[in-house]
Amino acid sequence: MTSSAAIPVIAIHGGAGTLSRNSISADQERTYHDALRCVLLPPQRLLASGGSALDAVTLAVEMLEDCPLFNAGHGSVFTHDGTHELDASVMDGANLRAGAVACVSRIRRPVRAARAVMEHSEHVLFVGPGAEAFAESVGLEMVSPGYFSTDARREQLQRALAASKTLLDHDGAALVFGNTPQTGTPLDESRKFGTVGAVALDARGNLAAATSTGGMTNKRVGRVGDTPLIGAGNYADNRTAAVSCTGTGETFMRAVAAYDVCARMAYGGQTLEQASTEVVMDALPALGGTGGLIAVDANGNVCLPFNSEGMYRGFARIGETPQTAIYR
Amino acid sequence: MTSSAAIPVIAIHGGAGTLSRNSISADQERTYHDALRCVLLPPQRLLASGGSALDAVTLAVEMLEDCPLFNAGHGSVFTHDGTHELDASVMDGANLRAGAVACVSRIRRPVRAARAVMEHSEHVLFVGPGAEAFAESVGLEMVSPGYFSTDARREQLQRALAASKTLLDHDGAALVFGNTPQTGTPLDESRKFGTVGAVALDARGNLAAATSTGGMTNKRVGRVGDTPLIGAGNYADNRTAAVSCTGTGETFMRAVAAYDVCARMAYGGQTLEQASTEVVMDALPALGGTGGLIAVDANGNVCLPFNSEGMYRGFARIGETPQTAIYR
Repeated sequence: MTSSAAIPVIAIHGGAGTLSRNSISADQERTYHDALRCVLLPPQRLLASGGSALDAVTLAVEMLEDCPLFNAGHGSVFTHDGTHELDASVMDGANLRAGAVACVSRIRRPVRAARAVMEHSEHVLFVGPGAEAFAESVGLEMVSPGYFSTDARREQLQRALAASKTLLDHDGAALVFGNTPQTGTPLDESRKFGTVGAVALDARGNLAAATSTGGMTNKRVGRVGDTPLIGAGNYADNRTAAVSCTGTGETFMRAVAAYDVCARMAYGGQTLEQASTEVVMDALPALGGTGGLIAVDANGNVCLPFNSEGMYRGFARIGETPQTAIYR
Repeated sequence: MTSSAAIPVIAIHGGAGTLSRNSISADQERTYHDALRCVLLPPQRLLASGGSALDAVTLAVEMLEDCPLFNAGHGSVFTHDGTHELDASVMDGANLRAGAVACVSRIRRPVRAARAVMEHSEHVLFVGPGAEAFAESVGLEMVSPGYFSTDARREQLQRALAASKTLLDHDGAALVFGNTPQTGTPLDESRKFGTVGAVALDARGNLAAATSTGGMTNKRVGRVGDTPLIGAGNYADNRTAAVSCTGTGETFMRAVAAYDVCARMAYGGQTLEQASTEVVMDALPALGGTGGLIAVDANGNVCLPFNSEGMYRGFARIGETPQTAIYR
C-alpha cells in the first residue's frame, strides 16, 4: 500500500553551533563530512530495499551514538560530577507511538532503549535507574559508564570546571574519531549544541524521527533537556512532518519546537519550509533560543534550518548521492 | 498596566475518571465539593487583591498536594516497589518561562520545586536525586518519603499487587481527609487519573498553569507521565491559553495535549472552547486517551472538558461564588 509517490529520504544532524575560533584544516573538516556520509549510507540502503522510516532513523542514530565525534553514546560529555547522563527518543509518524529514556548511564545505545520503551511497554518515558532496569529486562546491551568516556571529553570537563561554568556542549580541542586524534573541529565546541538526530520518509509514506544526546558538559546532575521529550526535541506525524531538534534545550522545551512545526502545518496550512523556518528563525530566537532542526514531510521535502553559524547535517534520497554540510 | 478587562479567575482539577461502582452517600460527595471549594478560596482572594496568576496556581496546587483526597503530595500512590515518585510543573504565560521536576520522593511540595527550577536555575526539568539536591539547595522543605504515604494508598498497592496489574490511579475504598475516614469516593478510584492542576488569569492579563501528581499505583519505577512535561500536561501562553491536563498520561504526551490547545488557537483561529473540546473529544480519543483538562484564556473564558464520566473540578472568578462539580 503506497500512499506516497515521494522518494524515500533520510536526513541527519550532529549538532549546531558557531564557527570555530580556530582555523580548521581541510582534513579536519573532511573528517566530519566523511562521518556524516558514513552514517547516511546504511539507512539510505535500508530505505532503498523497502525498509521502514522507523528502522532507518533508529539505525542512523545508533551510528551517530557509536561515533565519538558527536555528543551521544560513546563520546558523550561529562556532568559536573564526572558522570554521564544520556537521553534519547523515537517516534513513529504512522501511529504517533513514541518512546524515550532520560538520565541513563549504562545503556550502550540509548536510542534502542527508546525504541524498546515504545514497542515493549505501555509507557512513553522512563528515567534513571528505572529506565536502565527496563532496558536490561528487554535484553539490550548494557555497558559500564566508562564506555561513554573519552579522554577528549574528560579534558573538556576539567577545562569547564576550571572555568567554573557550564558549557552548553563540549569544548574539546582533541577529539578522537576512530584512532585518529583531531586537533580541531569545524564548529566551535564551546558554543555547539551536542545532539544527534535523524528523520526519514519511507516508501509506504511513513515518517519517523529519532534524537539522542550526551547532555551538556559540566551540567547539574538530573537536568533533562529537550531531546527525550516528545514534542520538544522530537516529533513525527505522517499528516505533517518528522522533526529532530538540536540547540539550547530549554528554549526548545518552552516553545515545544518539534511539535510546533507540525502544528503550524496542520492548523495554519504552512508548508514544511515555512513552518520549520518560522520556528527556527522567529519563535526560538524570541526566547533566546539557538540551534536548528531537521524535518521531512510526506512529500519528501527536506528542510534543515538553523539560526547558528553552522549545523552538522546531511540527507540522502534513495538513488541519489548523499549531501553533507556544516556551514551555511 | 492592565492589558485585559477580563475578570481574574482560578480553575482547578483533582483528576478525572468513571463513576464509582459503589453508591456514594451525599456526605461523601460533599466532602469532595468542600475540598475543591476550600482550595479555590485562597487563590481567589489572592487574585482579588491583585496577586499574580503564577502565585495563584502555585498556591492552589500546593493545597491540592497537601490534601490526601487527591493523588499528589501527601496521599500520593505507591509504585510497584512501594516507593513514591512525584512529578510537577509550572509555566508563566507572560514570558513562557517554565519549571518542572519528575521522580522526586523527598520534596514536600513538588510544585514549589518546579517553581524554583523556573526561577532559580537556567533549566526547565530536573529528575530524581538531582532534582531533590536542587530543591534542597534552594531551601525547600524536605520530608522523608514516608510523609507521602497514607494507609489508604498502601492498601491500594496491596490490592494492585494481588490483582497483578497496574492501576492507572488509586483504587482506594478508605481515603482519609483530615481525620475523617471515607468509605467511598465519587469517581471509581480504579479508573480515575490522579493528577491535580490549576490555571488562572490575573488582573494584569497574565495566564499561568501548574500541575502535580503522585503517579500511578503499582507503576514501574522511573516511568514519567505527562504532568512534568511542558506542552504535554501543562502549558501557558498569554497569547492563547493556560492549560492543565489529567488522564492517561502517555496519550497526552503523544498528542502534546496542553500545547495543542494553544496551537489550535494560535494557528487555526479556534476559540478556547473549540480548541479544548476538539483536543479532549477528538484528538485524545483517536489515540485511546481518556481524561480531561482545564483551560482559561486572556478574556477570562474557562473551559473544563473531559471525555470520562467525571472530573473533580471547580473555578472561581473574583467577586463570584466558587463553582465545583464532579459529574457531567
